[in-house]
Amino acid sequence: MGSRHRLGALVIAFTLLAAAPLWAAGGGEGHNVPAILLTLSGILVGAKLLGELAERVGQPAVLGELLAGVLLGSSALGLIPSAGPVADVINILAELGVLVLLFEIGLETDLREMRRVGGSAAAVATVGVVLPFLAGYLYWSNVPHGMGDPDSLSTAAVFIGAALTATSVGITARVLSDLSGLGSTEGRIIIGAAVIDDVLGLVILTVVSGIAAGGQISPVGTAKVLAVAVGFLIVAIAVGGWVAPRVFRSVARMKVQFAVPIIALALCFAMAALAELAGSALIMGAFAAGIILARTEQYRAIEERVRPVGALLTPIFFVSVGSALDVHLLNPTRPGGGSLLLVALGLTLLAILGKVAAGFAAPWAKFRRLAVGVGMVPRGEVGLIFADVGRRSGLLTDNAFSVVLLMVMGTTFVAPPLLKLLFKQQEPTAMAAHTA
Amino acid sequence: MGSRHRLGALVIAFTLLAAAPLWAAGGGEGHNVPAILLTLSGILVGAKLLGELAERVGQPAVLGELLAGVLLGSSALGLIPSAGPVADVINILAELGVLVLLFEIGLETDLREMRRVGGSAAAVATVGVVLPFLAGYLYWSNVPHGMGDPDSLSTAAVFIGAALTATSVGITARVLSDLSGLGSTEGRIIIGAAVIDDVLGLVILTVVSGIAAGGQISPVGTAKVLAVAVGFLIVAIAVGGWVAPRVFRSVARMKVQFAVPIIALALCFAMAALAELAGSALIMGAFAAGIILARTEQYRAIEERVRPVGALLTPIFFVSVGSALDVHLLNPTRPGGGSLLLVALGLTLLAILGKVAAGFAAPWAKFRRLAVGVGMVPRGEVGLIFADVGRRSGLLTDNAFSVVLLMVMGTTFVAPPLLKLLFKQQEPTAMAAHTA
Repeated sequence: MGSRHRLGALVIAFTLLAAAPLWAAGGGEGHNVPAILLTLSGILVGAKLLGELAERVGQPAVLGELLAGVLLGSSALGLIPSAGPVADVINILAELGVLVLLFEIGLETDLREMRRVGGSAAAVATVGVVLPFLAGYLYWSNVPHGMGDPDSLSTAAVFIGAALTATSVGITARVLSDLSGLGSTEGRIIIGAAVIDDVLGLVILTVVSGIAAGGQISPVGTAKVLAVAVGFLIVAIAVGGWVAPRVFRSVARMKVQFAVPIIALALCFAMAALAELAGSALIMGAFAAGIILARTEQYRAIEERVRPVGALLTPIFFVSVGSALDVHLLNPTRPGGGSLLLVALGLTLLAILGKVAAGFAAPWAKFRRLAVGVGMVPRGEVGLIFADVGRRSGLLTDNAFSVVLLMVMGTTFVAPPLLKLLFKQQEPTAMAAHTA
Repeated sequence: MGSRHRLGALVIAFTLLAAAPLWAAGGGEGHNVPAILLTLSGILVGAKLLGELAERVGQPAVLGELLAGVLLGSSALGLIPSAGPVADVINILAELGVLVLLFEIGLETDLREMRRVGGSAAAVATVGVVLPFLAGYLYWSNVPHGMGDPDSLSTAAVFIGAALTATSVGITARVLSDLSGLGSTEGRIIIGAAVIDDVLGLVILTVVSGIAAGGQISPVGTAKVLAVAVGFLIVAIAVGGWVAPRVFRSVARMKVQFAVPIIALALCFAMAALAELAGSALIMGAFAAGIILARTEQYRAIEERVRPVGALLTPIFFVSVGSALDVHLLNPTRPGGGSLLLVALGLTLLAILGKVAAGFAAPWAKFRRLAVGVGMVPRGEVGLIFADVGRRSGLLTDNAFSVVLLMVMGTTFVAPPLLKLLFKQQEPTAMAAHTA
């Protein structure tokens, strides 16, 4: 099939998918199952088709999945609604997808290796939080952008700064996994730093949510949030690391089919819930569950059986992240569109530079600093959460929210091709040595 | 680990699971993700533990999953809520589970084999609809049960009769698959008859829904429903059977990971939605998608990669069906409880006898008639739908609804052990010859 032929097929496929909600609407009162199924089906087909297109032009598949989300999102073809019962189900499936992804990452994480790169990861994470926060805060306070009244400007600037601190471990891990760079030193530092970033991000989120609710920044409250997040991870890994190998030795003796991978997934979901209830984050629990099971004798069996489940659920997450972009924001000819794009461009550049600089934060260690810095760039879903809290509390105007959204999307889209470029430059022999 | 030790572990596990909603409730306002994850986790662990217990006492795993549902349901331990946002998500996942199950059954269905047993299957299905309907109608009209006022008695009797016609292909197929009897002649007749039953059941459901809405039984309307249901299956298999092998030859050449199984699942979901929108049923579409893909060169790859997904989702369906039973109905000492149980027992016996008799409906063909008849016994989710429509419309009193529910659960629980017994008696050599 020629590439023109293939493109034609793509266009037809997307047109059909776009028409799906119309059929679904005919399904009648309150019964959403057909609409959910058609949306799900469209997401999966779109993810695979554009993932394939991305790979054909030499980009990671995840970039295609994000693009599929943009195209299928409510501002373009409109297959994926932004709210309502169908969106609720897609969001839950996307959430399960990111949990399974973090679980798989945890499963591939060797804790001793992690400790080896721990110092570098901590340095990268800390600089990668402080620098972007300051850059975002100062940019928003000083650059004339005409958004928000001066009174609430500094609180808005705190939010903008906070949104710049996040790192989406999901996007980067997926790109590295597509490039088989997860096992390299750089991959481990990025994942380690991103996890530390998540802990710090959680603290910041709790603090800024307090501001949004009209509260004050309290040192005691901040310390408590930090202690809970770190404590959960340490206790979970210590207790789970002792219990899990013993429990899974029994599970492996069960006669019923698929007992090991299904109980492993049950542990992933339960620990994610416990992490959130303990005041940490869902993804931290899923990641901890993976790390714990990485030490069991059954980890290869778990990995192999969980992969098809991840292959079904994780694209839903990436497509769903992509669908959050309102494509109308990209139109420079609409009123105020040009200046909004410029302000967003400036913020995006700062967001990129801040994280790239963080790659140079551990001068004592030997690794490819640029690759690590770029790996930290994508803000993904974590940045979106900040933006969302800011908008709901009214501290961010709609335009300021749009700017944050564009920054999140910009950093998310720019990282995969850059990472691909940087990891490609690495000698094939060095890669082989690292992953072996 | 001794069996007493194991039982103790089970009790502890269930107690912890039962406490989960309490922790989840602490998670706060409107944010249901931890509650959903804990429920999901409890369902999976419960399904595997009781599935294992069932297998250890020589029963199919699905029986344990149904029991896990009863124990975890809102009338017992209360982990699975019967309504609300958590229940909505679990119901959707259960729905996806039954679709993947029917898809897998379709994938294993050889259409030529199906045609070979088509006559027997049609005869079994027809008798298996007519006999139970008449038995249910006459029983309810004539036996003094003291439920419902005389005026609406005959309409209630129509509902009771209709609820007795259903066959849950899901339960039986799962039991046969656990016993590796899906490939036997009896297995094929049961599945074929259950599919025909679904078509007839759909027609009956549409007609009785019309009665419930205050309408009349119209021959034209009935014929239309029948034509749509049969037409969908024929058109889908004819068109899809031509298109799918060509499309999947292209999909198999895609570089992106898991393209074949994920696009296969997308087809399953899309066809399920289309079936429902066309006036047929979701599961018919999923089944048709499986039959279509059974003819592609990639069907083994699809089967292998879809199995772990099914292993995650289908137990959610069976646990969810089990959780619909209100265990308080089983208490004979509550007021009216004894006579309700007696009326339900009578109806259950008629329901079993009606379907067992249907096994003898094709005297010209050679197969194990008792095994086929018993295979048709479980009413499962289809019977529950009838009961639900009847209760919502007010044509069934709460007590009458409970009787139907008990009949559905009784037939569903009695079939797996009986089938197991009947398929065990079959000569091992005959089984091998059939499945080869």
